[in-house]
Amino acid sequence: MSTFRNFKMVDYVVYGRGSFNQLEDILAPHRKDDLPMIFLVDHFFEGKELANRIPVRGADKIIFADVTYEPKTTQVDALADALKDEFGMVSGVIGIGGGSTMDLAKAVSLMMNNPGSSADYQGWDLVKRPGVYKAGIPTLSGTGAEVSRTTVLTGPTRKLGMNSDFTPFNQIVLDPELTANAPVNQRFYTGMDCYIHCIESLTGTYLNEFSKSYGEKALDLCRYIFLEKDTWDDECDDKLMMASYAGGMSIAYSQVGVAHAVSYGLSYLLGTKHGIGNCIVMNHIEEYYPEGVAEFKRMVEKNGIEIPQGICKNVSEDQFDTMINVSLGMKPLWENALGKDWEKIMTREKLRELYGKL
Amino acid sequence: MSTFRNFKMVDYVVYGRGSFNQLEDILAPHRKDDLPMIFLVDHFFEGKELANRIPVRGADKIIFADVTYEPKTTQVDALADALKDEFGMVSGVIGIGGGSTMDLAKAVSLMMNNPGSSADYQGWDLVKRPGVYKAGIPTLSGTGAEVSRTTVLTGPTRKLGMNSDFTPFNQIVLDPELTANAPVNQRFYTGMDCYIHCIESLTGTYLNEFSKSYGEKALDLCRYIFLEKDTWDDECDDKLMMASYAGGMSIAYSQVGVAHAVSYGLSYLLGTKHGIGNCIVMNHIEEYYPEGVAEFKRMVEKNGIEIPQGICKNVSEDQFDTMINVSLGMKPLWENALGKDWEKIMTREKLRELYGKL
Repeated sequence: MSTFRNFKMVDYVVYGRGSFNQLEDILAPHRKDDLPMIFLVDHFFEGKELANRIPVRGADKIIFADVTYEPKTTQVDALADALKDEFGMVSGVIGIGGGSTMDLAKAVSLMMNNPGSSADYQGWDLVKRPGVYKAGIPTLSGTGAEVSRTTVLTGPTRKLGMNSDFTPFNQIVLDPELTANAPVNQRFYTGMDCYIHCIESLTGTYLNEFSKSYGEKALDLCRYIFLEKDTWDDECDDKLMMASYAGGMSIAYSQVGVAHAVSYGLSYLLGTKHGIGNCIVMNHIEEYYPEGVAEFKRMVEKNGIEIPQGICKNVSEDQFDTMINVSLGMKPLWENALGKDWEKIMTREKLRELYGKL
Repeated sequence: MSTFRNFKMVDYVVYGRGSFNQLEDILAPHRKDDLPMIFLVDHFFEGKELANRIPVRGADKIIFADVTYEPKTTQVDALADALKDEFGMVSGVIGIGGGSTMDLAKAVSLMMNNPGSSADYQGWDLVKRPGVYKAGIPTLSGTGAEVSRTTVLTGPTRKLGMNSDFTPFNQIVLDPELTANAPVNQRFYTGMDCYIHCIESLTGTYLNEFSKSYGEKALDLCRYIFLEKDTWDDECDDKLMMASYAGGMSIAYSQVGVAHAVSYGLSYLLGTKHGIGNCIVMNHIEEYYPEGVAEFKRMVEKNGIEIPQGICKNVSEDQFDTMINVSLGMKPLWENALGKDWEKIMTREKLRELYGKL
């Protein structure tokens, strides 16, 4: 008997321009005694207007999180330990930022109620207890981290999420106004994370109609935004936020593929961020996704973006080996992309050659 | 400040052909001591194979519910009272059937934990306490009742749902195999409920990008199923189940329109079921939805369905008045369809004329 994943949804969703203004009312019923709400905010917003609009009450605290690099288990543990030291316990953790901030907020919430290190929970269904109340407020659209049941973390031995039914947010606030001032390149790379993931999942061998319908919708929205529209406007922000949400939901019964598997090696070794890493790889894998890569290149051109080249030029053979090991470790991604016999297709030599081109 | 609804999602979703076989495992963690699970099953399945596949354990009980007419508050109260008399309390209520069965299961679950009559809770956010665990397993696709935050009930004075954050299911099991043997006409009418609701919401004045993206996907799926496909097959069942889900989700920030408002009058007076009632009305409202009605008629023709005519031929003027009153009472539907000045457009005379044609 095949079994289908029983997918845990986010509890509450609010979508709308200006819905961020409802945050105080949304949080009110979740405040416990005098315990603070912790706002974990992308450091990009330090000194910006958005930071002043956060409804800070009582002992609440804003923590600007450095997301220059993607979240590490050590960073999660340090944040949770500092909160326990300062407050004993908190009412909730509210993440405001891009995918890294979303993942950080989910992980810190879980570590407020689970013992040990977040590294102990990297894997599937290892988390034993619900975290504190957690809400996600994306300011960049594309990763789908706002609806996922994971939180990707770089640990001492691997880059892997805390995948569990306790991981999804209790609340997400989808306010497209918050994405309006994102830097153009960053916005493009993050949007392409959604596009690439649709191409990988829709052409993959793991897929059912639930994920297909979400993936197709996300893909339609990406095509409209990045190919049909000539200037970026509110409609683009509105639609890209829904593309991100739909792309994230489509992960329920699908899997990513070659771009993600190769990009994980880059990010492990070089710290390349997820969105740009996927773009760097997508630029060179027409062999696996001929139509998707051609369309991706049209999007890059139309939006006037330059994808970095030659990022592996100073990488040693030992380091190539490390990247290859990390990448080939992502077995479900390869199997989704290339089928059961993927190891015969994607040999170490072939992957070495691909990394050499990046 | 405009406020956006904070939409409560279903907690868990499983989608897949054969996922009904996982029901025992899904329910196991929700069984409380020796309290039974109650399976509320559309009477259509009495003596059919599906009834034998229900994982009945201990004191569990299967109740075949007569859904010849849409659920009434009296029926809900009688079911909940009988369960309290027999068992004191139950572990959960599992609805297996079409939209009426879904609504009945949600309402009975709520009434196990809330005092008085379900009629006391017809309205918005009147329910004070969560119900018992509840799961929905649709065997017909189209109404979207599996994901809605309401449960439409005919009460002593009105047809109105128990709309609340406690109303959505804790679990839905979306197994398209269960819809394979639905009667062709019933399947069409229920599918058209989804299609009509997309036309009404996408052309309405209430809409945002969240609901638009879901509504567009549901519409695309309906067009594929009812216009492009030449024979009904598994793919149709798979896709119509997702169309129903997406159509239901799209209700978060949208509203239905003329067909639903007029159809409510029919069902109040004549007991006409929701799906067929919408089709009877849709057949005559090209003035409001010219493209939608033309496409609807192509779907009717292509699928070889005969929409009933002349159902109001024996209706008295007093009865027309009753239907008109019920219909004009659905203010948000009319405002969504025709704008703020809807009362100048849809006069009693005009509505009398429309009912006369049905």
